[in-house]
Amino acid sequence: MSWRWRSKRNDPAESTLKDIATTGFAGEMAQHAKPDARIVNDAGVSSPEPAEAETRLHFNTSHTPAVTSPIGRWLNELHAKYQAVNDGELANYIPELTRANPSHFGVALATADGQIYEVGDSEVLFTIQSISKPLVYGLALEDHGPSAVLSRVGVEPTGEAFNSIVMDEVNNRPFNPMVNAGAIATTSLVKGDGPEERFARILDMFSRYAGRKLSVDESVFESERSTGHRNRAIAYLQLNSGMIQEPVLEHLDLYFRQCAILVSARDLAMMAATLANNGVNPVTGEVAIAAEHVKTVLSVMASCGMYDYSGEWVYRVGLPAKSGVGGGILAVLPGQFGFGVFSPRLDAHGNSYRGIEVCKELSQRFYLHVYDTHFASDNIVRRSFRGGAVTSKRLRGARERKVLDAAGSRILVYELQGGLYFATAEQLLRRMAGEAAGVSFIVLDGRRIGRADLSALLLIRDMSRSLWEHGTTMLLAGLTEQIKADWLALQESSDLKDTCFTNVDDALEHCEKLLIAESDPLALDTNAELPLAEMDILRKLTADQIGRLAPHLEYASYAAGERIIKEGDPADRLYMLASGSATVNVRLDDGKRNTRMAAFRPGVAFGEFALFDGGKRVADVVAETKATCYVLTFEKLERLEKLEPELYHRILFALGRLLSDRLRRVTAEVRALS
Amino acid sequence: MSWRWRSKRNDPAESTLKDIATTGFAGEMAQHAKPDARIVNDAGVSSPEPAEAETRLHFNTSHTPAVTSPIGRWLNELHAKYQAVNDGELANYIPELTRANPSHFGVALATADGQIYEVGDSEVLFTIQSISKPLVYGLALEDHGPSAVLSRVGVEPTGEAFNSIVMDEVNNRPFNPMVNAGAIATTSLVKGDGPEERFARILDMFSRYAGRKLSVDESVFESERSTGHRNRAIAYLQLNSGMIQEPVLEHLDLYFRQCAILVSARDLAMMAATLANNGVNPVTGEVAIAAEHVKTVLSVMASCGMYDYSGEWVYRVGLPAKSGVGGGILAVLPGQFGFGVFSPRLDAHGNSYRGIEVCKELSQRFYLHVYDTHFASDNIVRRSFRGGAVTSKRLRGARERKVLDAAGSRILVYELQGGLYFATAEQLLRRMAGEAAGVSFIVLDGRRIGRADLSALLLIRDMSRSLWEHGTTMLLAGLTEQIKADWLALQESSDLKDTCFTNVDDALEHCEKLLIAESDPLALDTNAELPLAEMDILRKLTADQIGRLAPHLEYASYAAGERIIKEGDPADRLYMLASGSATVNVRLDDGKRNTRMAAFRPGVAFGEFALFDGGKRVADVVAETKATCYVLTFEKLERLEKLEPELYHRILFALGRLLSDRLRRVTAEVRALS
Repeated sequence: MSWRWRSKRNDPAESTLKDIATTGFAGEMAQHAKPDARIVNDAGVSSPEPAEAETRLHFNTSHTPAVTSPIGRWLNELHAKYQAVNDGELANYIPELTRANPSHFGVALATADGQIYEVGDSEVLFTIQSISKPLVYGLALEDHGPSAVLSRVGVEPTGEAFNSIVMDEVNNRPFNPMVNAGAIATTSLVKGDGPEERFARILDMFSRYAGRKLSVDESVFESERSTGHRNRAIAYLQLNSGMIQEPVLEHLDLYFRQCAILVSARDLAMMAATLANNGVNPVTGEVAIAAEHVKTVLSVMASCGMYDYSGEWVYRVGLPAKSGVGGGILAVLPGQFGFGVFSPRLDAHGNSYRGIEVCKELSQRFYLHVYDTHFASDNIVRRSFRGGAVTSKRLRGARERKVLDAAGSRILVYELQGGLYFATAEQLLRRMAGEAAGVSFIVLDGRRIGRADLSALLLIRDMSRSLWEHGTTMLLAGLTEQIKADWLALQESSDLKDTCFTNVDDALEHCEKLLIAESDPLALDTNAELPLAEMDILRKLTADQIGRLAPHLEYASYAAGERIIKEGDPADRLYMLASGSATVNVRLDDGKRNTRMAAFRPGVAFGEFALFDGGKRVADVVAETKATCYVLTFEKLERLEKLEPELYHRILFALGRLLSDRLRRVTAEVRALS
Repeated sequence: MSWRWRSKRNDPAESTLKDIATTGFAGEMAQHAKPDARIVNDAGVSSPEPAEAETRLHFNTSHTPAVTSPIGRWLNELHAKYQAVNDGELANYIPELTRANPSHFGVALATADGQIYEVGDSEVLFTIQSISKPLVYGLALEDHGPSAVLSRVGVEPTGEAFNSIVMDEVNNRPFNPMVNAGAIATTSLVKGDGPEERFARILDMFSRYAGRKLSVDESVFESERSTGHRNRAIAYLQLNSGMIQEPVLEHLDLYFRQCAILVSARDLAMMAATLANNGVNPVTGEVAIAAEHVKTVLSVMASCGMYDYSGEWVYRVGLPAKSGVGGGILAVLPGQFGFGVFSPRLDAHGNSYRGIEVCKELSQRFYLHVYDTHFASDNIVRRSFRGGAVTSKRLRGARERKVLDAAGSRILVYELQGGLYFATAEQLLRRMAGEAAGVSFIVLDGRRIGRADLSALLLIRDMSRSLWEHGTTMLLAGLTEQIKADWLALQESSDLKDTCFTNVDDALEHCEKLLIAESDPLALDTNAELPLAEMDILRKLTADQIGRLAPHLEYASYAAGERIIKEGDPADRLYMLASGSATVNVRLDDGKRNTRMAAFRPGVAFGEFALFDGGKRVADVVAETKATCYVLTFEKLERLEKLEPELYHRILFALGRLLSDRLRRVTAEVRALS
């Protein structure tokens, strides 16, 4: 098993990966404190020969009782398959490149959250060459903005070789930034005070992409400079027609130098992962390029990145990519991962022979082509229901229930699922437009939405405004942090901002409260204390029985925020809420957050479970407001068994009924949720 | 409101749309029985002038109390904005095209599930011209396969105009199928016995794309034929160098004729939606092009579709598209929708001036560029738990529970959420590889997965094989029909096929059964009848109390499949299962399907809810096997209150405990599910 598996810093799965490492994978934590240490050492140790790679494979598998990841295995298979292929020739236009080891072959894949898989000579350094072009193009975009750059460098593919001297004479600019003419013009746009500062900006940006400090192969640079006559010719032609400005020789030096930056296949994978991650290096968290320009850089790679093989690349591989005559290829699956290959033998187009083959097979085998898609059939609305059918977890008194029984259907909840993008948002809008009549509140339950793109959020925002004009308020619940942030960013100051709820329950309670306030505002008053006879579990008792029960009860009052029941306390009594409101808070698995399991209004009994199974309290019950309770200890209740058997039966029976009610309700909820 | 909204046939939202139509939208059902009737009429009625479009807008809005869709409104805004733009010139290379009405302007959007939004002159017919090229290319791919076609027509963009006479001399083929040279070569590849049959195949395919029978504008065809000298020159040059074969004049006639096929902007939108929907027309369900070639057609459109504006199109719009000199543009957002524009004034590249502007604005405003993506942060595993923490709904006897208490943690459940694609599958594999040690079963709960692409399913399949080799069985539950079909299609005969379960509960029960069978096979035997004293709710009774209770009980036996409790029966008794097994089946909201709410094993009591709240049974309980029960009617139980008050207390208390147990368990489940 020769692939290596590294986790990013702060990866929650870190311990997991350590476990794997100790049980046999050659996994290890990347040394982010000195990110370049390992690479430099590895380069120093020189390059393993193919046979040695096999040895490593054999050595490691013998220690592998753990489950292997298919991704690593597939990369291994790909590597082994094409290691045997020796087609293509080393680049020979400068002497230094002919000194490369033609058998070198490294492959690396870095996910957009920073996981690296790599195989073979993935840490061997080579010069980046033309792969520098799209990245410097990004820097020019940052320095001047897209329209200024577009006026100086076109974006049309030419079908010609990388060193073509043909220009777009109609627009007096080079055709695109991926041919040498366009790349030289692009580099000429990089700002800075003198050549040192300009190059420092370039190298610094490349280093942010790679997540480690990169350096230049000075001998390759010198060699490129001393032999780059054609590029000088191109540059002077451009100067002659006003496409670029002086100092031409400085621009050329910068260009030769950017091409001589040393990277490994792993660096290329990480650079590509940075593009896949919207310009943010997923390991270091550093911004290599502003997110707004990533799309443009990827577009130019997609249309012109592979020289005069670009069309066939789109046809066969379908990932934005860039190759260099140093033998590298960088490819991006936006939002998902970056891929880097190094093998210095080139085909007739100047692309790495093995690199192209590996990318073709990877794309075909994993169905990674950008148009490999068949998700038209998503059904965005999982189910919908009215407020009458499901209510918030607040256990309400009879008067409030009456309002909700009548008006609850004015709340319409859509449980969404899958991904929100243009097509699924359109489905949702269609549903809402058809069903909004007579509805006061639409709640979108987004907890099953993994992803929402901006087009979908824009559509929903505009729908929300339309609904508002028709008297319907739209609320959102349970969005992920990312989606919520995107949603809020789309709101304008005129939009209602307080329409996002943590969960559906809160949203429902909000709607219920507004409905009750509209119809029967006094029902919301929890200050008035209910008499004993109006406690839910005592409703079937006669006045005489109530009178006989009263002396056995205690009475307690609580300040707002005070705990009525404390987790871990002995469970030895039953509570009936006489005034105020209270909530049950349960600590979630992670031990940090609380969630509201239920909320009580006057008349409701709680703590009754304990009568049957005793033990300790498993949740806090907290007074939301000033509250009062009637309390029946189980000790007193058991005494009633002898003293007042009929009263005892009634209470036991009422508790059984309460439990069966709640069980029915919770079971229905499980059914709804499942 | 001048946009019109049509539903596809069999749309479940049909009634909704009708409602909207009657409340003011100019919505109507497309007449699919005679799909072309309306179009022909509309074309006959001639074209509304801009002023008239405004009138329609005014007329319709005055009837619109319903909520309006932002999509229709945005299309309206776009249309109104660019209606005022009069840049560009009519195509003039044949006289017929100069007769077009330069003010015509129609826009249509069709979703990949067949919903159409349209505005302006969306039903005016015009000739398809070069938009025919990618579609005929698809036909050539079907006729000869990709490699044969690629050997005859390249896929490289040229940066040259559509009528360029430059060829790829290295490969002796035209550069790509979107320039005239390539398109003529493509058309020459269309199979058929003679020109009529060959053209009938082309026209039939176009009609399947559009979902209606299309026809040819014969005068445009004659005009193209009589003036197409340059195309004849191109064709003879190709014949001369062996790029195409005779009969050249027949190929040219076919080519001129395919260019003269009449379509509307709405047709283009539907054709594009067919490509978005993997080659299947979303309204008629007809296959216009085999799914395997859709990717290739889209790729060629993406790299070469917009003449020498293709690079800038990718840069600015980023959707695969094709334009024609008739003034049409067809654009595709794969998996989501198709877009059609018609406005006959062209820019210098030969593309519709307004069409380009509308597409640019649509793409930018809705963030539809194919690289507008930022979904790297999906967290695919929502939560995971062990079999000990959650169990199947089968209520098991003490002996079985003992096994599961000890071994349940060998079942590991991952609740997935969002979309499964390469990057999220990689996350999942990482989790599984790290946690699989000591696990016998991994259950993937896929009910919250809206979409799974093939790359993800392949990764999971291979992981499943790895796990199997390490003694861990992977099961999947709750997949959508589409995902399940894709999953099964990836399995090879050597894979276990019976690893898909309808829901997690079934999967859990399957695992539990295997664990119990391994440790204590006899515990699974439900044939032996348990004595009364071993019924769960009677365990705390003394032998003497059991003896006194026995005479009040009935005993009943049931055949496998027989209903023990029938929905709607009076709820007047309590059951204790003595032997066999039974399940509770609840009818779901839709009234058609049943779901298993619980399953019982010997010792378990059921039907006890009714004691407290009476009424009718709300679910069936069915004997899964031959089964026997002890039955206590509530009438007898009430008699016990007087006769045997202590026994009565004990039973009531045991039932309360049973309820509180179940409530705790179900509440925990709600907490887990929420």
